[in-house]
Amino acid sequence: MTRTVGILGGGQLARMMVLAGAPMGLRFELFDPAADACGAQVAPLQVAAFEDEAALAAFAARVDVVTFDFENVPARSAKFLAERVPVYPNPDALAVAQDRLSEKTLFQSLGIPLPAFADIRSRDELAARAAEFGMPCIVKTRRLGYDGKGQFRIRSAADIDAAWDTLGSQVDKTGLILEGFVAFDREVSVVAVRGQDGEFRAWPITGNWHVDGVLSASLAPAQLPAAQHEAAIGYARTLAERLDYVGVFALELFCRGDELLANEMAPRVHNSGHWTIEGSETSQFENHLRAVLGLPLGDTRMLGHACMLNWIGQMPDASAVLGQASGHWHDYGKQARDGRKVGHATLRDDDAAVLAGALERVGAQLDRADQVAPVIKILRG
Amino acid sequence: MTRTVGILGGGQLARMMVLAGAPMGLRFELFDPAADACGAQVAPLQVAAFEDEAALAAFAARVDVVTFDFENVPARSAKFLAERVPVYPNPDALAVAQDRLSEKTLFQSLGIPLPAFADIRSRDELAARAAEFGMPCIVKTRRLGYDGKGQFRIRSAADIDAAWDTLGSQVDKTGLILEGFVAFDREVSVVAVRGQDGEFRAWPITGNWHVDGVLSASLAPAQLPAAQHEAAIGYARTLAERLDYVGVFALELFCRGDELLANEMAPRVHNSGHWTIEGSETSQFENHLRAVLGLPLGDTRMLGHACMLNWIGQMPDASAVLGQASGHWHDYGKQARDGRKVGHATLRDDDAAVLAGALERVGAQLDRADQVAPVIKILRG
Repeated sequence: MTRTVGILGGGQLARMMVLAGAPMGLRFELFDPAADACGAQVAPLQVAAFEDEAALAAFAARVDVVTFDFENVPARSAKFLAERVPVYPNPDALAVAQDRLSEKTLFQSLGIPLPAFADIRSRDELAARAAEFGMPCIVKTRRLGYDGKGQFRIRSAADIDAAWDTLGSQVDKTGLILEGFVAFDREVSVVAVRGQDGEFRAWPITGNWHVDGVLSASLAPAQLPAAQHEAAIGYARTLAERLDYVGVFALELFCRGDELLANEMAPRVHNSGHWTIEGSETSQFENHLRAVLGLPLGDTRMLGHACMLNWIGQMPDASAVLGQASGHWHDYGKQARDGRKVGHATLRDDDAAVLAGALERVGAQLDRADQVAPVIKILRG
Repeated sequence: MTRTVGILGGGQLARMMVLAGAPMGLRFELFDPAADACGAQVAPLQVAAFEDEAALAAFAARVDVVTFDFENVPARSAKFLAERVPVYPNPDALAVAQDRLSEKTLFQSLGIPLPAFADIRSRDELAARAAEFGMPCIVKTRRLGYDGKGQFRIRSAADIDAAWDTLGSQVDKTGLILEGFVAFDREVSVVAVRGQDGEFRAWPITGNWHVDGVLSASLAPAQLPAAQHEAAIGYARTLAERLDYVGVFALELFCRGDELLANEMAPRVHNSGHWTIEGSETSQFENHLRAVLGLPLGDTRMLGHACMLNWIGQMPDASAVLGQASGHWHDYGKQARDGRKVGHATLRDDDAAVLAGALERVGAQLDRADQVAPVIKILRG
């Protein structure tokens, strides 16, 4: 087991992979353009641009397998590495997931229901398609957007010019896509893993709440009806098999009544799976490593109910969470900065009512009642 | 939470403390005479002798608190550090636990039952006391013994000379103690934690099996009668309060019928508590850190049943364990060497029968049926 895993991207996802793999005796090397990447606190970091082929070649020579903490590594760099060392997920799967248009076209071809979407090449096309889809609708960059960045919500025809002024310059760079707006009841995600031998496992579906486009809280299990739960996991499996995907990924979906609509796929461990560290037999981080190393996958069963609260901008005081019986604290070792994910907490209990009580106390003590309220509402059914 | 914890000793216990604390944003500095200490793979290591006061002073200046992965740090070095930085557990508690005679005298004064013992200063005294205690009995160094090292079992009066030849030279160095032999039914340990505010928590008692004096397997809960369980935890609490102990410690006991007899105390996280990483809400490593940093202690409840198997000498193949639903793998990153603790596995399940089945498969696949057999016997009641 003294194998070395290379990770492109050295942020908190890489950091948590290292902390999941080190107990198993794995070594790691990180690669990131930012010298202050927080993963560098727990593993050696090579600082270089993702396009730097000399640096990539040196990195490949030091590791046994390469994976990602960041999906927007240039496809060309992923392919360059794949010629030198095994890379999981494979660069083609990464390329599909990097491009909202390719991804949604794939969903459609696989019979996975999704909101209306259209490739947008001009202001006039944007105006015409927005009228066709109905407003509100959302124009996004095809590539390089995340956490609500690179998108513009069109509320009425009067917003078309502002949307084009903001994103039109991207049409020849990242491309643009228009997406129909879904007035969803809930957002959920499937976090799943597929092994090199094709074995597929999913964790129970997670319910997610976003604030300003950034994940604020997750609850697992999401307490979806069984038919929706099975359908969503079936979509994830279909997708993983079609892409010959190896590793952990997330499929985000909207629930509207009985309907499920796929939103997007993240080809990596995912923020909505952080609860698996304490709330599941095997964490998403450990199972990702097992998959990319060709080891048997771990069990994805839950240990009770788990809620993850994201800390954005700066860390709150730890003692409110640590004072709860099931409170677990994660601090990524980052400098505070507006909008930045700096840490999270997970609270877990076998009993939903006990977990709701703990969340209520944390919400009150940290003056974050709004953050915990939607989770408590589901837990109290 | 960006506090730095200094650990004296850089072995697997330090390594597991680092891996438990890094998720919470803690930083670490290790101090060990051995440059190849396996903790150095996960945290900065200062290589120096424990007696090197210049090195200790520099170390103290870089950390916010000091603790131990190794109980045999010279008491003088612990005191030297304690003049410069908070040290937990306190050096006086460490000194008591380092010396079998002080420790047993303390047990006795606290009303904790224990086997007969005597300070030994000469061959004649050894012969007289052995005759008095009955044979077999065991002569041990008062200090610096561990894992069956520094001891000699006297089976009959004919062994007295051999025992004295082997250990007599230690009488003026570490001192010698004679201990009555206990024909025990079972060995158990209490792993417990005490906070700076005096809060005390114990994990469920663990059953332990040793081979050649080294821990081979542990099972939690040990499935002791409730009265014994409570008595053992009461002894641990009494001891911790008397020593004003802060941090995790283990109290090893023998069970003989309804009787409990204290064997020894380890003033640190303990091999018989490794199962807490996956088998408890809060691991011994995390709770030790919470205690030495003055944070609220985490819950010590179990998640089902857990069995830990020690790997001694060299690591077996990982896949037998990873192929079980609840199999977790720990490789300390050490070179193989006879008698050395190089890793462990933990298997966990809510259902004792399921856990027994998994252990049986692991035992068969790794040709280690003997190692798992006593655990399976308890699980199958």
